Amino acid sequence: MNLPTGPRETLSLAELQSLIDTMYSRKDEARGIDGTFMWLMEEIGELAGALRDGKPDELAAEFADVLAWLATIANVAGIDLQQAVLEKYGNGCPGCGDMVCCCDLATKP
Amino acid sequence: MNLPTGPRETLSLAELQSLIDTMYSRKDEARGIDGTFMWLMEEIGELAGALRDGKPDELAAEFADVLAWLATIANVAGIDLQQAVLEKYGNGCPGCGDMVCCCDLATKP
Repeated sequence: MNLPTGPRETLSLAELQSLIDTMYSRKDEARGIDGTFMWLMEEIGELAGALRDGKPDELAAEFADVLAWLATIANVAGIDLQQAVLEKYGNGCPGCGDMVCCCDLATKP
Repeated sequence: MNLPTGPRETLSLAELQSLIDTMYSRKDEARGIDGTFMWLMEEIGELAGALRDGKPDELAAEFADVLAWLATIANVAGIDLQQAVLEKYGNGCPGCGDMVCCCDLATKP
């Protein structure tokens, strides 16, 4: 996948998966889901650290890393992230059904 | 944010953040980043379980949940996920610089 050059204003979840597929799937298929999940966990830890005391650009980079590893695991597992999100959240909160969630704060939506 | 009705073929990262912002930001701002991160961790655990032995639709739903909680934390923290991904991965692997990563399998890209 080649992204258009120059500033972009949008990146779809499908484009994210395609970009990460081009970049990493060959390696991550060899690594397998378990090994790739371990890298995701490392990034989750780094995100936690950056949420605690990271500069904004460091925090943004950690979010990007978590998304990239999540996308590569979805690629290896054959999951369409865009379809998954639209099916679960596209018509409202899966808990209460409203577009502005009214589930109790202590319950999982 | 109102998503157009009917089948959709695309959802941008910005639309994902906007959708989740409408649905959950009021609650998650009250909950705070630490409390919201705990819910993300619970979803990460459920994703691990579904990767192990979930049916495809269950696995897709767990990916959607992780993305939703990640998006809501990004919203509370004021991070633009789309911009973050494009800046870090839009021009190639941040490790080797290539569009098809050639970093060693044992190293973090």
